[in-house]
Amino acid sequence: MSGAADSVQRGRLLAVARGDAEPDLVVEGARVLSVFTREWLDGDVAMADGRIAGVGRYEGGERIDARGRFAVPGLIDAHVHIESSKLLPAEFARVVVARGTTAVVCDPHELANVLGADGAHWMLDASSGLPLRVYVMAPSCVPASALESPRGPLGADDIAGILRRDRALGVAEVMDFPSVIAGDPDVLAKIALHEHVDGHAPGVTGAALDAYAAAGIRSDHEATTWEEALEKRRRGIWVLLREASNAHNLVALLELVRRHGPEYCAFCTDDREPDMLVREGHIDAMCRQAVAEGIAPEDALVMATLHPARCHGLADLGAIAPGYRADLVVLDDLTSFRASVVIAGGRIAARDGVALPFAAPPVPDWVRATVHVAPLPPDAFDLGPAPGGRVRVIDIVEGQLITGAAEEEPAVRDGRVVADPERDLAKLAVVERHHATGRIGVGLVRGFGLRSGAFASTVAHDAHNIVVAGVDDASMAACVERLVGLGGGVAVAAGGAVRGELALPVAGLLSEEPAEAVVERLDELVALLREQGVEGQAPFMTLSFLALSVIPDLKLTDRGLVDVTAARVVPLAV
Amino acid sequence: MSGAADSVQRGRLLAVARGDAEPDLVVEGARVLSVFTREWLDGDVAMADGRIAGVGRYEGGERIDARGRFAVPGLIDAHVHIESSKLLPAEFARVVVARGTTAVVCDPHELANVLGADGAHWMLDASSGLPLRVYVMAPSCVPASALESPRGPLGADDIAGILRRDRALGVAEVMDFPSVIAGDPDVLAKIALHEHVDGHAPGVTGAALDAYAAAGIRSDHEATTWEEALEKRRRGIWVLLREASNAHNLVALLELVRRHGPEYCAFCTDDREPDMLVREGHIDAMCRQAVAEGIAPEDALVMATLHPARCHGLADLGAIAPGYRADLVVLDDLTSFRASVVIAGGRIAARDGVALPFAAPPVPDWVRATVHVAPLPPDAFDLGPAPGGRVRVIDIVEGQLITGAAEEEPAVRDGRVVADPERDLAKLAVVERHHATGRIGVGLVRGFGLRSGAFASTVAHDAHNIVVAGVDDASMAACVERLVGLGGGVAVAAGGAVRGELALPVAGLLSEEPAEAVVERLDELVALLREQGVEGQAPFMTLSFLALSVIPDLKLTDRGLVDVTAARVVPLAV
Repeated sequence: MSGAADSVQRGRLLAVARGDAEPDLVVEGARVLSVFTREWLDGDVAMADGRIAGVGRYEGGERIDARGRFAVPGLIDAHVHIESSKLLPAEFARVVVARGTTAVVCDPHELANVLGADGAHWMLDASSGLPLRVYVMAPSCVPASALESPRGPLGADDIAGILRRDRALGVAEVMDFPSVIAGDPDVLAKIALHEHVDGHAPGVTGAALDAYAAAGIRSDHEATTWEEALEKRRRGIWVLLREASNAHNLVALLELVRRHGPEYCAFCTDDREPDMLVREGHIDAMCRQAVAEGIAPEDALVMATLHPARCHGLADLGAIAPGYRADLVVLDDLTSFRASVVIAGGRIAARDGVALPFAAPPVPDWVRATVHVAPLPPDAFDLGPAPGGRVRVIDIVEGQLITGAAEEEPAVRDGRVVADPERDLAKLAVVERHHATGRIGVGLVRGFGLRSGAFASTVAHDAHNIVVAGVDDASMAACVERLVGLGGGVAVAAGGAVRGELALPVAGLLSEEPAEAVVERLDELVALLREQGVEGQAPFMTLSFLALSVIPDLKLTDRGLVDVTAARVVPLAV
Repeated sequence: MSGAADSVQRGRLLAVARGDAEPDLVVEGARVLSVFTREWLDGDVAMADGRIAGVGRYEGGERIDARGRFAVPGLIDAHVHIESSKLLPAEFARVVVARGTTAVVCDPHELANVLGADGAHWMLDASSGLPLRVYVMAPSCVPASALESPRGPLGADDIAGILRRDRALGVAEVMDFPSVIAGDPDVLAKIALHEHVDGHAPGVTGAALDAYAAAGIRSDHEATTWEEALEKRRRGIWVLLREASNAHNLVALLELVRRHGPEYCAFCTDDREPDMLVREGHIDAMCRQAVAEGIAPEDALVMATLHPARCHGLADLGAIAPGYRADLVVLDDLTSFRASVVIAGGRIAARDGVALPFAAPPVPDWVRATVHVAPLPPDAFDLGPAPGGRVRVIDIVEGQLITGAAEEEPAVRDGRVVADPERDLAKLAVVERHHATGRIGVGLVRGFGLRSGAFASTVAHDAHNIVVAGVDDASMAACVERLVGLGGGVAVAAGGAVRGELALPVAGLLSEEPAEAVVERLDELVALLREQGVEGQAPFMTLSFLALSVIPDLKLTDRGLVDVTAARVVPLAV
């Protein structure tokens, strides 16, 4: 808050608080959550000039009858990659605002991997003026590691440039945890760019975690057990409890809340596919799930409102209290967490689960046409000669981002290692797509259940090269070629021919269609994959994370198989 | 944290955390408090380069055997006027560091009332390089109100200048709560100077409190009942539980902690006379008292460590966790809270209740010689002709800063209103002492028990004019004249002659003597006052607050009697 104009606005807000002026908007008769005491207060909520004036009795203004219902602060996602929704930021906003979310803290590192620092700047531009407050953390790890290939690296100067923008809060998840722990000066210099730095330290505990925390990192969303989360919280690291499309950590982590209370815990979704957003919801779904697991609604709600705000230093968000931003939700009950009215910045933003229309910023041309691939040679996906011993296999862990590193006797045909659908061993390839270098990494993956054909995506964390899994090379090639033609997207092929596709023209990551259309198309593609044998909840998201070189144990990039813990490329042969 | 040098230091800290380098200092074998979970962890605490590396097992470094004892973060005072100790900042540090306090957030508004903005700058200079971290809030209310007369007013530019300094955290307690609530643009402009603004709203509740909070004020240390404190906390206002020499609020406020937990609660001392600091202690005494009242030691300790840090946005204070400042205390037990070792910035600062020697900054000449009083006329303390009806009387409330506004039939002699020791009605006068204007306010006070003579002080909140209470005019004059001669201080007189005195040459507020000598001298003065009938715990502090025009109900300044709630000067006659 600063400046004379703001002082004048404050003067009116104070007059409304005193009862000397009429509010703009009043929510009448709800039970109102005080996040500071976890009590329910009886009173009307008065708003003026986009802020809360108070909870009491007020005359005048636009009135919303909320008797018998519950007024809570607008929900906040403590850590999300909007790009995982495959939606434009405005469309993402439309979907989640309808669910009661009024603010998110996003890390636009998918866009930054494809578009460079401009991608992060565009996220800020594309989320300007929305009913959803979109805060940005400046991507710290582009590339995620030296073992994968985005369009180009983001340097300290790029990060500093993003940090100068309004709505930029700090340095985003420092995923290269081995370099942090080792004290790599370049990584420490990035961390030193801002006081507020998010973390990402899957499975890191003990002395290594001490080193990670000592670097100044104060949040983490990668804990998969409550014991790991407890170790982090003891060190003053905010535990961001995650429930993503393929990282269902909430239930396991709630034990931390049961044992030690909700302090230093906040909800986040990290990566949600559009179907999960449309069908299950967003932070509202996490509240619903937590309460179903026996957590007190008030504890769930502070983890969904005040705590994400506090974690990120957002001093006037996350509470229904005088002077706070007038972001609030009227809930029908404390089991479904259904949002019947959503107010953002003192204006009604959604009613009965439907967002009110708002103007979305136009999409500039330069964010499209980002897929540049060299012509595929006939042996593009060849796994090489049989090694005479075992080969490494990426083992999918259902519902998790981590993978196993298995060793198996390979299937061999004509002296070459090949896919073996009988043992659920599919080929996996990552094709560099930013600079048409022709670089392709190949390996084997187990756990999809793919019996025929292939499927591919230009969404492939974090470098977003083309990732393709398949049991026949012709179908793999057909997928990749179609994605090049589409300028990015998702495709399914069998018998060497494409059976279905979804275009993601913006950076090869985002559709320009409404969420419902994207979900319908993805459902069709998943149905095709089911016909081809694929099991598992979110096969496209699972596929897209197989290329992420910073989540253990074994991954594949355009540089080859990556032993994440050892932080090096390893050959297929053991 | 920023800069290449810091990155190098961090690199070493991380190496110590990993176990790859030797720590500077290790506290061995204590039970270590995690303030984030309120658990006691078993492990050594390793420190390097002034920060915590971790809690675990470490080789090498200087070792402190703490087996069987408790390691907790250094104690933090969330709000204190160091000047109330009557000690130089370095001497204050010596006293409180010995008690386990390693950081305070101070408001140097006493100095600012006497020395202007330079007084606040000098507090920062005078507290540089101490084992105590002294953070400064920029005084917002000099004068406290238009009804009292400091050396000069502090404007927004003065405040902004203080805010530019290192260790300046925000805008100090906005005591002029009526102007805030009314939306006075000048006050709102001061609040708008910084995001972090401390409050002071005694007895303010309901819609008025909504307006005060809506202005952006997020702390308060003036609640006297737990219900008032609860109202504040519900609005997101940090409740700073105060235990001062003449405002013993802790016991009453702990009920809030019992009912709603310690969140959004922190300890503060506000104003402590030197005898209270030396005999009872500082924040350690509040922990002791809280635990004696049945509060869990872990809850008391978070209110004494993490919470004050969080309230003030001190991101790396208040915890024993990797990367935090190495400020910690080894306690013998969790009942006495006796600090056997105090570590500040990774160095031993005190052992067994005695601070280790350190260099104190020299005192510049310009902070002395601040008492300028016009010659007293013979009728300086005349209360005027008998009004023919009742007169206003300030009623002291023992142990509180608030006063009552009574109405009594006056004692009359020779047609003039006079003191009446039989009914405990003493004269009270406030003599302007910054510009020798000759302005004197006079009134009546009840509650000291003074039977003869007078006592006076140049410590007289907040303008620090000379305040004198007496039952004979000659003794009152003798006191005032001696204080002028001393360049400030405290004096007791009887029969028109001074019986005892304490010089406070620095700004008329601070001694340059050691704490123990100051206490001894004040004890002697209190003993003299006891001979003259005075009762009550801290008569000089009580006297000094009778001039503070912003704490209800009735006060006296050089401008006359002040009806605080009405914010105006009122005559003696009803």
